Amino acid sequence: MVSRRNFLSGAGAITAAASAAAVSKVAMAALPEPVLQTRPDTMPPLVPNTGRPYNPVVTLNGWTLPWRMNNGVKEFHLVAEPVVREMAPGFKAHLWGYNGQSPGPTIEVVEGDRVRIFVTNKLGELHSVHWHGQRLPNGMDGVTGLTQPGIPPGKTFVYEFVARRPGTFMYHPHADEMVQMAMGMYGFWITHPKAKHPLIDEVDRDFCFLLNAFDIEPGSYTPKVMTMLDFNLWGWNSRIFPGIDPLVVGFKDKVRIRVGNLTMTNHPIHLHGHEFLVTGTDGGPTPKSTRWYEVTTDVAVGQMRQIEFLADEEGDWAFHCHKSHHTMNAMGHGVPTMIGVDHSRWRGRSPT
Amino acid sequence: MVSRRNFLSGAGAITAAASAAAVSKVAMAALPEPVLQTRPDTMPPLVPNTGRPYNPVVTLNGWTLPWRMNNGVKEFHLVAEPVVREMAPGFKAHLWGYNGQSPGPTIEVVEGDRVRIFVTNKLGELHSVHWHGQRLPNGMDGVTGLTQPGIPPGKTFVYEFVARRPGTFMYHPHADEMVQMAMGMYGFWITHPKAKHPLIDEVDRDFCFLLNAFDIEPGSYTPKVMTMLDFNLWGWNSRIFPGIDPLVVGFKDKVRIRVGNLTMTNHPIHLHGHEFLVTGTDGGPTPKSTRWYEVTTDVAVGQMRQIEFLADEEGDWAFHCHKSHHTMNAMGHGVPTMIGVDHSRWRGRSPT
Amino acid sequence: MVSRRNFLSGAGAITAAASAAAVSKVAMAALPEPVLQTRPDTMPPLVPNTGRPYNPVVTLNGWTLPWRMNNGVKEFHLVAEPVVREMAPGFKAHLWGYNGQSPGPTIEVVEGDRVRIFVTNKLGELHSVHWHGQRLPNGMDGVTGLTQPGIPPGKTFVYEFVARRPGTFMYHPHADEMVQMAMGMYGFWITHPKAKHPLIDEVDRDFCFLLNAFDIEPGSYTPKVMTMLDFNLWGWNSRIFPGIDPLVVGFKDKVRIRVGNLTMTNHPIHLHGHEFLVTGTDGGPTPKSTRWYEVTTDVAVGQMRQIEFLADEEGDWAFHCHKSHHTMNAMGHGVPTMIGVDHSRWRGRSPT
Repeated sequence: MVSRRNFLSGAGAITAAASAAAVSKVAMAALPEPVLQTRPDTMPPLVPNTGRPYNPVVTLNGWTLPWRMNNGVKEFHLVAEPVVREMAPGFKAHLWGYNGQSPGPTIEVVEGDRVRIFVTNKLGELHSVHWHGQRLPNGMDGVTGLTQPGIPPGKTFVYEFVARRPGTFMYHPHADEMVQMAMGMYGFWITHPKAKHPLIDEVDRDFCFLLNAFDIEPGSYTPKVMTMLDFNLWGWNSRIFPGIDPLVVGFKDKVRIRVGNLTMTNHPIHLHGHEFLVTGTDGGPTPKSTRWYEVTTDVAVGQMRQIEFLADEEGDWAFHCHKSHHTMNAMGHGVPTMIGVDHSRWRGRSPT
Repeated sequence: MVSRRNFLSGAGAITAAASAAAVSKVAMAALPEPVLQTRPDTMPPLVPNTGRPYNPVVTLNGWTLPWRMNNGVKEFHLVAEPVVREMAPGFKAHLWGYNGQSPGPTIEVVEGDRVRIFVTNKLGELHSVHWHGQRLPNGMDGVTGLTQPGIPPGKTFVYEFVARRPGTFMYHPHADEMVQMAMGMYGFWITHPKAKHPLIDEVDRDFCFLLNAFDIEPGSYTPKVMTMLDFNLWGWNSRIFPGIDPLVVGFKDKVRIRVGNLTMTNHPIHLHGHEFLVTGTDGGPTPKSTRWYEVTTDVAVGQMRQIEFLADEEGDWAFHCHKSHHTMNAMGHGVPTMIGVDHSRWRGRSPT
Repeated sequence: MVSRRNFLSGAGAITAAASAAAVSKVAMAALPEPVLQTRPDTMPPLVPNTGRPYNPVVTLNGWTLPWRMNNGVKEFHLVAEPVVREMAPGFKAHLWGYNGQSPGPTIEVVEGDRVRIFVTNKLGELHSVHWHGQRLPNGMDGVTGLTQPGIPPGKTFVYEFVARRPGTFMYHPHADEMVQMAMGMYGFWITHPKAKHPLIDEVDRDFCFLLNAFDIEPGSYTPKVMTMLDFNLWGWNSRIFPGIDPLVVGFKDKVRIRVGNLTMTNHPIHLHGHEFLVTGTDGGPTPKSTRWYEVTTDVAVGQMRQIEFLADEEGDWAFHCHKSHHTMNAMGHGVPTMIGVDHSRWRGRSPT
């Protein structure tokens, strides 16, 4: 499921048009091998075998990026590139992402880790990566035109900083933002606490995913990058119904779900049969005095919500955005209104 | 105002096309008589004359559904059916609703009540009812295709569960959700506390209503069911200005207003002249440490907000969604811009 | 930068079409001279030289309205009128505003002040001003058709009330609301605390601005007033990128930013490199037990959010609405999708 591709040898099917020639052989020798993902499945949690221990998360229809330790620094290699994402069985979209998929892989580190991320740009335009929510030196913030020049096509930029505070974050482009995010570029970042934290409980299940939106015409496979409102595909980690994996938990498990939003509208995330608390945001864990129970939490654009509950009701419970069109995807648009047409001949029959 | 219709006899004007023949006479004998509502007015609170006592709510331009006690179980009968709703004087819309109106009637019970709800489907398609926010057995959650097969046209399904936690809830279809909610199907549910609750204050006035949206072309009377964003009618309990009743309270009354949102966008509900607290959600009462004063609370889709304030300023105070188009309804769209046209000949005259 | 215009003498360039003839000479003699603003720059804070002292705010690309003391009453004069606003260098729009600009000037008073505001209507239609969030007598609430008749063109209406509670407020029309707000009419209001307040900290920097939206076709200069969703200009105090001034603060300054929203959608305001607390709303200061850290706060329509943080990271940090189209403005719409077009000939060159 995870392939290690020799960067110098060039071409996987997905990135056939890209050339690594712009990066010198000397520089490449210093880079960690990029790890690519070829499948859209929910991968098992990546239990750390180097660095400090932590309890890994499960990324919905996604995966965590392996790293290498280099003199005490955790080194990751992100490759920004065109990808083909299976959004649901039978439907593949031509997106942009990282390391073979959209979204990019989840990055998991531990509070206090020094982190070095090599970002190789295999797009046809400038790119940079913003580490949304992090405390870091200004020059590492990844805003093209403000804190750095854009990374040219074919080049690699190195970000390095200490993961100073534990929390749930995301990363996304800050160059040609509208287009690059419309194309599916973003990923999750989790900084696990280095020790027991009074506001971060241990849980039995820990899931994460990003909300995203696309406008892909039926019969087409490329998102329209200028759409502001009339999206027709509302994704969870670039998957749509019925391609989204279930979040499977045990009876009486303590469950944490981390949800970030990089669309153009609020998404009210609703859980059936249970109440939950919002225990953290991308700003940090929420103090206990601020918490109240909800069955629907509104996740605004550019926000992260970390919800927790006890799974103490047996059964299959729906979990969805409560905007009804967002559960219908492309099935729900442009169909003529048939309400008022005589349905009486259907009465006697049960369509079930 | 409330009529009891013999279900076997067939046809009120509203449901003339529907036939009850699919329900056997034996089964019908066991059902409580459905109670229908023929008027869009705000009905007086339904003071309970059976079951445990509680302080009833007032449903804005709506009503509470009577029940019968059957061996200690509260039995309600909801009929899902096409309705004609007067949205404002002079404007009637062909919607779908329950028991003669859209929204359906408010259901009021007491914490710990065992509740049995018969849902008869008189629509031309499958239906099921989700009891949003409730703790209940998985099979009673009302999600077609997940927790039950859809209720076929002409059939009755029986939901039964204990109202385990006090709070402000709603009910709505979870079959062909986009269409059925676009047509006006939903209702309020209140579970009153069985005893004095530390986070649920006694109030002098207790109102509830749902926010809803329709896209009905001028000259037409049927909602376009595929509209995702460009609605032209923003309703409170399927009424629009100037058809919405005022919320009349006494000077220095303690007032509670419960507002739920089943549209496709956030509605920031704004009260003039007073500050209020959000004292509860569909997740439960909010702890006191979490409460701060607002004059505008944003109610997200699928959310419930329960606000409370002391009416200590005399006068008529506006109370509205702060999105300015939502107070204009169909008057506000498609009119050409006249700004820049010479208005000077109007200057000398007062249009008032 | 601030000009005092003799009201009787008639005409500045901006208001050439308006006549003050409808106001009698006797009445005018009692009015404070209106103060107009001709520039879109961020003006220095207005340090009070009459009335009680306070720490003034800085209005982003705006200014604070001077007043006169009259027997212990603070008197302001707002003139509602067509204005030409430079939204960015090289782009001027024909808006409606107050006293020469859109938004209108910030009004700053002290808790307990008796305030008298003369509102002169130089528009071609009825007008009234609502003092959003204030405690005041019902007749001063400014809702045309409910608490007062609209102010006719050419006439002046006098509002008077005591600023009873400290806080961050706004003012905006409540007559033909949709049109007048679409044209740019609104302003900020701050009531400073009269004494040290346990929930209002002293800060080193205190900024304020309103979020607004316009639909102005390229090549045009007048907003389309009926647009509900598809705006193409997302402004901060009627300025757009790159015309928005930076918020300059010192290292380790305590910073407060007050943001109000008068558009038609939520704006998630995101700060890079720091976490902040929401310390107040238009409902009042938030109790400390309710505060949690965020990097993105969602400001709903008709809401005010007052955020505070310690500027303890050096550098230039981005601060923006996180909806990516809202940072692109008119550049972002209607461009055909070029994704999939061969960009390979760009690969070898760096566009930077």
